[in-house]
Amino acid sequence: MGLVIADDVLGRGLQRIQREVDDAFDGLLPVPEDSSATLVEAMRYAAIGGGKRVRPLLLVSVAEMYGASRAAAVYAGCAIEAIHVYSLIHDDLPCMDDDDLRHGKPTLHRKYDEAIAVLAGDSLHALAFEILGGMKVSEDPFIRAELVHALASASGHKGMAGGQVMDIAAESAKGELDLHTITRLQQLKTGALLGAAVEMGAVLGKVPEEGRAHLRAYARDIGLAFQIADDLLDEEGDEEVAGKALRKDADAGKATFVSLMGIDDARAQAKALSEQAIGHLSQHGEEADLLRALARFIVERDR
Amino acid sequence: MGLVIADDVLGRGLQRIQREVDDAFDGLLPVPEDSSATLVEAMRYAAIGGGKRVRPLLLVSVAEMYGASRAAAVYAGCAIEAIHVYSLIHDDLPCMDDDDLRHGKPTLHRKYDEAIAVLAGDSLHALAFEILGGMKVSEDPFIRAELVHALASASGHKGMAGGQVMDIAAESAKGELDLHTITRLQQLKTGALLGAAVEMGAVLGKVPEEGRAHLRAYARDIGLAFQIADDLLDEEGDEEVAGKALRKDADAGKATFVSLMGIDDARAQAKALSEQAIGHLSQHGEEADLLRALARFIVERDR
Repeated sequence: MGLVIADDVLGRGLQRIQREVDDAFDGLLPVPEDSSATLVEAMRYAAIGGGKRVRPLLLVSVAEMYGASRAAAVYAGCAIEAIHVYSLIHDDLPCMDDDDLRHGKPTLHRKYDEAIAVLAGDSLHALAFEILGGMKVSEDPFIRAELVHALASASGHKGMAGGQVMDIAAESAKGELDLHTITRLQQLKTGALLGAAVEMGAVLGKVPEEGRAHLRAYARDIGLAFQIADDLLDEEGDEEVAGKALRKDADAGKATFVSLMGIDDARAQAKALSEQAIGHLSQHGEEADLLRALARFIVERDR
Repeated sequence: MGLVIADDVLGRGLQRIQREVDDAFDGLLPVPEDSSATLVEAMRYAAIGGGKRVRPLLLVSVAEMYGASRAAAVYAGCAIEAIHVYSLIHDDLPCMDDDDLRHGKPTLHRKYDEAIAVLAGDSLHALAFEILGGMKVSEDPFIRAELVHALASASGHKGMAGGQVMDIAAESAKGELDLHTITRLQQLKTGALLGAAVEMGAVLGKVPEEGRAHLRAYARDIGLAFQIADDLLDEEGDEEVAGKALRKDADAGKATFVSLMGIDDARAQAKALSEQAIGHLSQHGEEADLLRALARFIVERDR
């Protein structure tokens, strides 16, 4: 998919998690023999292959750093990825962004139809919590309940979905929004789920609440850096490489980090946030190298 | 809303749970001051007022029969009702049933727009699991994780959403489906969530697995009776009283229990299933009177 990765540690980390998440979804979604087969095929089309798997990698990296089982963390990673994938499916719908392309292939409602896209999104949403409620994620029910609460809070009206509605409102406000408002909006729309990935890794790693401050600071910084990088990609990226339509924000006259700060300052700010994120990991040794590489990757990626 | 309830026990039970669920949603959904206010207002519009609250009543009745806290059960009832409400919002969308009326008022996408309807549905979906992952439902994390798993399994591709896709497939198959297929489809589309309501009540009431067989049999029978009654309502009901469009199945030439069995046999079958459901409660005394009344109500309701 043309993903340029300079870092070997990260390259191997991404390849490994991509394979693990694909395998896990494959096992979780056998196609039934009845007329609901189309639904499961649509879920598989959207969930298997194509994604960068940044959220599962974040979750698994934090969990492993604290000695949690990788297999269990991969399952939890599939739960957060299922939420991410469902949000992309619903985002792409005609009544939302009306996109035709995702990961270089037709969006789900183009490949199937809108009804299937709505229901496949809903089913992946439910699958996330079916995974987290089940024993494969953890035999400790306290951990399962904590994971559920972290993911549900981050994805609902106080997190991702709330941010999406603020984003829609921002579109009609055109260029009138300030940097503070855009930052808050993006912290919800993108940051909340990236933060949940780190939080869920900490839950699996049994990191006590008071030991999570630096992880949360790391997550906050990469969340913002991620969105600024997304805005830069939307402005400067290659549609072939990105596998989706670009230049949409500018065409819509929407306020973004780039329109408010200019390209150079936005790039400098993303880089500074990435370095700041890495700074929050100073108490860790080489076991945090993947998280450091991920912080760099997030602002350097080309899709 | 013109709901005719002959039974006093049930009338009081329904009024009480309707008030409790409305109050709980009111507390769970304060309207924020930022531009995501529209989302929360839309969630409140769909979730507060109007619903019969059959699923919460089932859940709370079973939970209380086994001595669980009513306040906690009402919260779990809000979770299952949030799933039910989100499924109605998405079902009503133009790409699905394209309905203009629900509970006697404009459907959510008519009142707001399609994007808000998709996102309000998604947010109620997330809210369900935020509730179940939280402490108000139970201080016992094992119970919270069990509730999550029961609800997610029943609402995803192996339950409600799977049944909806089979229902869409049935529509294009026109009258060609047999009773066996319709029964299986409805067991998923409607039965799975009614079954989850009973199951979740049993989890809160700490009923051991081996003590749940009669509850599951009760749930299976009322689930099927409920759907046959729905088909009868669609055929014979009053749109004013029902608060939604009727006669849709017949107009679409769709196979239903009524089209396959005829009105008289369908009514007799619904009544027999209701009696059979009550038979499964024979080991219980008057503490199960509400569940008995509910089994009767399900086939006698006019909306």
